[in-house]
Amino acid sequence: MSETLLFAAPTVNADLRWFSRFKAGDPFPAFTHKGRKVGLLPLLEVGRAKTESAFDEVLNLTELIRAARVRDPKAGVPEVIAAEAKARGIRRFTVPYDFPAGLWARLVELGIRLELPGKGRDERASPQVFPGRALKTKVDAAGIAAGNRGSSAAFRAVERILRESTIKGRWVRWNGKVLTAEALHAAAHRAVLEVGCINDHGLIIAPGDQAVDCHAAGSGPVPAHEPIVVDIYPRHIESGLYGDMTRTYVKGRANDERRRMIATVKAAHAAALKALRPGVTGAQVYAAAADLIKARGYFTGKRGDTYVGFFHGLGHGLGFDVHEAPSLSPAAHQPLEPGHVVTIEPGLYYPGLGGCRIEDVALVTKAGYRLLSRHPYRWEIA
Amino acid sequence: MSETLLFAAPTVNADLRWFSRFKAGDPFPAFTHKGRKVGLLPLLEVGRAKTESAFDEVLNLTELIRAARVRDPKAGVPEVIAAEAKARGIRRFTVPYDFPAGLWARLVELGIRLELPGKGRDERASPQVFPGRALKTKVDAAGIAAGNRGSSAAFRAVERILRESTIKGRWVRWNGKVLTAEALHAAAHRAVLEVGCINDHGLIIAPGDQAVDCHAAGSGPVPAHEPIVVDIYPRHIESGLYGDMTRTYVKGRANDERRRMIATVKAAHAAALKALRPGVTGAQVYAAAADLIKARGYFTGKRGDTYVGFFHGLGHGLGFDVHEAPSLSPAAHQPLEPGHVVTIEPGLYYPGLGGCRIEDVALVTKAGYRLLSRHPYRWEIA
Repeated sequence: MSETLLFAAPTVNADLRWFSRFKAGDPFPAFTHKGRKVGLLPLLEVGRAKTESAFDEVLNLTELIRAARVRDPKAGVPEVIAAEAKARGIRRFTVPYDFPAGLWARLVELGIRLELPGKGRDERASPQVFPGRALKTKVDAAGIAAGNRGSSAAFRAVERILRESTIKGRWVRWNGKVLTAEALHAAAHRAVLEVGCINDHGLIIAPGDQAVDCHAAGSGPVPAHEPIVVDIYPRHIESGLYGDMTRTYVKGRANDERRRMIATVKAAHAAALKALRPGVTGAQVYAAAADLIKARGYFTGKRGDTYVGFFHGLGHGLGFDVHEAPSLSPAAHQPLEPGHVVTIEPGLYYPGLGGCRIEDVALVTKAGYRLLSRHPYRWEIA
Repeated sequence: MSETLLFAAPTVNADLRWFSRFKAGDPFPAFTHKGRKVGLLPLLEVGRAKTESAFDEVLNLTELIRAARVRDPKAGVPEVIAAEAKARGIRRFTVPYDFPAGLWARLVELGIRLELPGKGRDERASPQVFPGRALKTKVDAAGIAAGNRGSSAAFRAVERILRESTIKGRWVRWNGKVLTAEALHAAAHRAVLEVGCINDHGLIIAPGDQAVDCHAAGSGPVPAHEPIVVDIYPRHIESGLYGDMTRTYVKGRANDERRRMIATVKAAHAAALKALRPGVTGAQVYAAAADLIKARGYFTGKRGDTYVGFFHGLGHGLGFDVHEAPSLSPAAHQPLEPGHVVTIEPGLYYPGLGGCRIEDVALVTKAGYRLLSRHPYRWEIA
């Protein structure tokens, strides 16, 4: 049986966050051994790892390196991993696609056999080293819901500011000044903190045509009567799990074309949720939304240099990473299973109209699904 | 000449943040070609990358994959990288130590030669793929200073709460309740946001003996008369660069032993700064602090299962990563150069006394150094 080996910092690596349930900013090795979780921690982290992590065994990496240097003055992390593997009779490890190439090369020199979890051609398509990461426990689902309470708190902060604002000519005004995306960003950052979350991967509050570039964070003055896309994906600090929700607002009154665009996205969102249940593929759920959008006459594709319409996937898995398996896209042919957590986020984007995206988070259950996100869809703020 | 290839998400990879100056949460490839920076961006990021990044060329990865699939239905990221390399006459790439092993393996199959930047045995000791990352520009130094203004804002928030607090028996009380580390964390999170920073890698506010485990975040009631280690390393949101400063406080009155410990750490901090200039090694600057601590009779080493004394390095490089080259430790034998930015953070830790750490950030200059951090050292709050 092949064991699994990781080397990464939990702050930036979701596999290690999931595996170790440990918070640390510097990289370290960890591996499985006969169903037990073994962590090789730098001395600064050993004490904390023993009490705060999911490791069954915590070894002192610093001391092991010191000991190895008695025989080999250049010994380091790879030599210690190789020695531990040999002492335990482990001859090969499965490593994740993003395992460090430098460590891979040196371990191979040291006689350790390494293999990838599957024959995938690139990161997105490759099998995960821990397929179980996609199947959430009750505790994980609760952490994701807590992250979504952060998103909802940010929406309330944005809604409050838009309610308190006035319209003068083309622009929204607040506190005697033109309202900016930056002021909304600051309010959203504060709001998520109040409920124990942090926007450590950034956030999107993009007014008007800025939202057509659908990863633009948003900046500058907020125009009246145009959509503002608010996409908040906070980490719940205590659990380390992410929420991810989007609402679209208009301060003032949307014209008919924008009103129809927003209604269509909401209808696509409802159609996707209706299609969501165990046994269907991500591609089928995607198609439920995409077909509705197309049937209502919305063009998706390239106009000049700009992608318009519903040009992104319908959703993605959510957990210790903001984007993880499974995906809801035309290429997703694996059936969904109870325990999968996915975002449902159809959108439409056209220069001149702006963007609209509505996103919730659903846990696939035996019976169908249960939403892990909860926030009204009232989008027009007078 | 070998070109350099990266594959990572800027949110979690400092090499790519430094190289691209681009903010994005999903991984993508980027490489050098005859001194130009080339980014292969997913279509969602192409528009933004053209206006917001440092790339000289932005290619549409999504379209290139689609085109490649006409001939090879399983083509993905590796095939597109290989085709681009061949079209440009690039036969080999240098990749960073943490380049994804899965992509490495597939590129090698596709006939691309890959090499690591040097013969280092592990991540910490290996040469960097961009040694220039350690030499900061004026703009980088300004971003680091902005991050440190976040740390300083957090210190002011903590100081204000400690001033407003009272002491009742063993504990500090604030707003009619026992003051907790969690309340201080929340105040510090809010304070850094007010100056455009975010604690995306966490923070440390650790009272009493908790600080002896010097990466413990801190939790629970704050005892009076004992040191509270406050270590804040925020990212300046606009520039993406990190600050990193530590102050140690006592609410009430420290006993003589604690007073002497804190004075010793401050003296070690001053001794290290006195030794800091171009041409000296990180080991020499470390020794200036460590020798003073030892000369004052403080034991460093293991007592039972606990490391006590000055058991960590003196400091580390700071920039797009919280920990980067160069380090100030006994093993750091490279001479420091103008442009290096390092933390100076001696500390002492003993169960029963608690911990003390004082940390500032210095830019090495031709003349010696210039501090990029500024905050008073008043630590006793009555």
